[in-house]
Amino acid sequence: MNNIKNVAILGSTGSVGTQTLDVIKDNPTLFSAFMLTGHSNASLLIQQALEFVPRYVIICDEDKYAEVKQALVHLPIEVHAGYSAIKEMVTHPDIDVVLTAMVGFAGLEPTINAIKAGKDIALANKETLVVAGELVTALAKEHNVKILPVDSEHSAIFQCLAGEEQNKIEKIILTASGGPFRGKTRDFLAGATREHALKHPNWVMGAKITIDSASLMNKGLEVIEAKWLFGLEADQIDVIVHPQSIIHSMVQFEDGSIKAQMGLPDMKLPIQYALSYPNRIKNNFKRFDFTAYPNLSFEKPDMGTFRNLQFAYDALNRKGNMACIVNAANEVAVAAFLKDETGFLAMSDIIEGCMESLPYMEQPTLADYLNTDKETRIFAQNLIKQMPLKAYHI
Amino acid sequence: MNNIKNVAILGSTGSVGTQTLDVIKDNPTLFSAFMLTGHSNASLLIQQALEFVPRYVIICDEDKYAEVKQALVHLPIEVHAGYSAIKEMVTHPDIDVVLTAMVGFAGLEPTINAIKAGKDIALANKETLVVAGELVTALAKEHNVKILPVDSEHSAIFQCLAGEEQNKIEKIILTASGGPFRGKTRDFLAGATREHALKHPNWVMGAKITIDSASLMNKGLEVIEAKWLFGLEADQIDVIVHPQSIIHSMVQFEDGSIKAQMGLPDMKLPIQYALSYPNRIKNNFKRFDFTAYPNLSFEKPDMGTFRNLQFAYDALNRKGNMACIVNAANEVAVAAFLKDETGFLAMSDIIEGCMESLPYMEQPTLADYLNTDKETRIFAQNLIKQMPLKAYHI
Repeated sequence: MNNIKNVAILGSTGSVGTQTLDVIKDNPTLFSAFMLTGHSNASLLIQQALEFVPRYVIICDEDKYAEVKQALVHLPIEVHAGYSAIKEMVTHPDIDVVLTAMVGFAGLEPTINAIKAGKDIALANKETLVVAGELVTALAKEHNVKILPVDSEHSAIFQCLAGEEQNKIEKIILTASGGPFRGKTRDFLAGATREHALKHPNWVMGAKITIDSASLMNKGLEVIEAKWLFGLEADQIDVIVHPQSIIHSMVQFEDGSIKAQMGLPDMKLPIQYALSYPNRIKNNFKRFDFTAYPNLSFEKPDMGTFRNLQFAYDALNRKGNMACIVNAANEVAVAAFLKDETGFLAMSDIIEGCMESLPYMEQPTLADYLNTDKETRIFAQNLIKQMPLKAYHI
Repeated sequence: MNNIKNVAILGSTGSVGTQTLDVIKDNPTLFSAFMLTGHSNASLLIQQALEFVPRYVIICDEDKYAEVKQALVHLPIEVHAGYSAIKEMVTHPDIDVVLTAMVGFAGLEPTINAIKAGKDIALANKETLVVAGELVTALAKEHNVKILPVDSEHSAIFQCLAGEEQNKIEKIILTASGGPFRGKTRDFLAGATREHALKHPNWVMGAKITIDSASLMNKGLEVIEAKWLFGLEADQIDVIVHPQSIIHSMVQFEDGSIKAQMGLPDMKLPIQYALSYPNRIKNNFKRFDFTAYPNLSFEKPDMGTFRNLQFAYDALNRKGNMACIVNAANEVAVAAFLKDETGFLAMSDIIEGCMESLPYMEQPTLADYLNTDKETRIFAQNLIKQMPLKAYHI
């Protein structure tokens, strides 16, 4: 009898990827790392491959192929390179579940291919549903594939929905830490630095999602993701700022009862739950203790200052390719901010500019999404070039 | 097709009883009041019978029989009187679910009879499981009967366990409001009045349970009840004081994930859930809103001052008839306190005295429980008579 689940980790060298390997390492009788893919961090990918000896290793950056291949040459590991290889190999018949932890829009196509091949998806790449939620959820239904959320907020809701299949959701309440800039004014944010934005108070995450957390774009993307994961309308999705990040999110049912999922902020729990669902696995993760958290606080998000969250709601209401535009504009804006090429507040201006200018499509196909993404990126890049030097350079 | 559930409400004139009738009134296509029983409040029982026209009405106090009978003589309602009638009629074949909202030890025998007759139990009488949890849960299993908790804390845990049948509970965390005397010292409590003890900050409940809340005995009884409802050991049951009474209780699974059930303090929700389980019913109960509760706080219970909670844990660890002794002693103590015949702190002394003096039995039968209850009451009454006048009379 072999019930070991073969896991393909797309983005194994990122924050979620490495924590997924921690979970696999702790549960060798349950999970096996079958395929590892990395973007460009060849040394970490090699190190992971040497430890886990997966059947396949794919490095996205083709310039690093030789280095990876050479390092693993004596092991029974097939090494491939390039984004196309990821999109293709993710359909391998021996894969049981694909954990998608790539950053940004790049997660979309491999995820779609995996769904078409009947693989369950442990979804850590929120852009997949943000960009093309309608298409992806329809495909998952068609191929009878489970989409298991890895984001802590969506995992919380998913956990709260266990055993409630017959009961209607009145609304969900997504919690937001508020990030490093909670309570700050627009004046302050005009001069916010990359270093400050990268200092998240509760969660250790990759750079892109950390900036998104500081701007509340991350919560906006989660609002859109939640719509598709749980079949909700925009007015059924509330966001509340909860600085301690202990309540990870909540569901309110139509009888008014609210269920919450709580715990210390630790991504390993939702990763493990996505892989073991519907079962839970005993572990030694640090336990939550109320004596360390005697007060849990809650406040409304400031969508006047943190406009990206409002943009997400707008995109949700406008439907079509609008969320794809928001996402692409944001990816470009964050990349520019991380390179010190634009300011914190300017990121919202870039997104707004793209939403106002890119052509709207009501029923986009996958090709339309790819095109919208491409055009939005070009437009956003041009916007950045045209912008005057910002106050953040003081 | 007739899917209406026939509900027998034991204790319909009490706080939970009247709220159960509210739920039934709101859902006439789902529930019907089939049998109403009241202790001695004839006028309210008559009023309820006139409104709901149940098949049976039983007044426990036989002196009130003529009054009730006379008032309902023109309606198709059978009127009975006496505790024996309740114990007997609760087995009626047309009853689908028995909601047990009688006060104290008196709930035990009717509940046992209902279980033996195969009725599902919506359990609002916590003393039933406190006194004879081992016997009652074994009977429920034998007769394939569901015990659906109505207490808000146990309902919260029950709701959190939906869909988690295959997953082990690491521990549960019962929340306690702390009652009107939270944070008070023994010196203060020595002079605590009945009027003050009856002023619960969050919940509107009957007098007995309100005094129990003030002394933390109510939480102690809930600890014992939880042991039997959810098959736990004493060290798997934590109590945390949460003055806002928004989180009604929590379950921590063996992966460390905590699920909580939350909402405004309103007994109608757990009553409705017990009757409609596993389905939820849309309603217009007032909804919880974080803007009205920006802070939820938590603190350890003070078991040095509020000794009754410690006694409950002791009883749980000592097993046998010890919880029966604690319960009987407490019932006598609370009744005396409500009549101004003993002091607030003296209630704990009475319980402690009984625990030290009554004969311990390891495997009591129902007859043993009845006997322990009787003997404890006599012993407790004598203790009270022997006590000197207390400082509370100042």
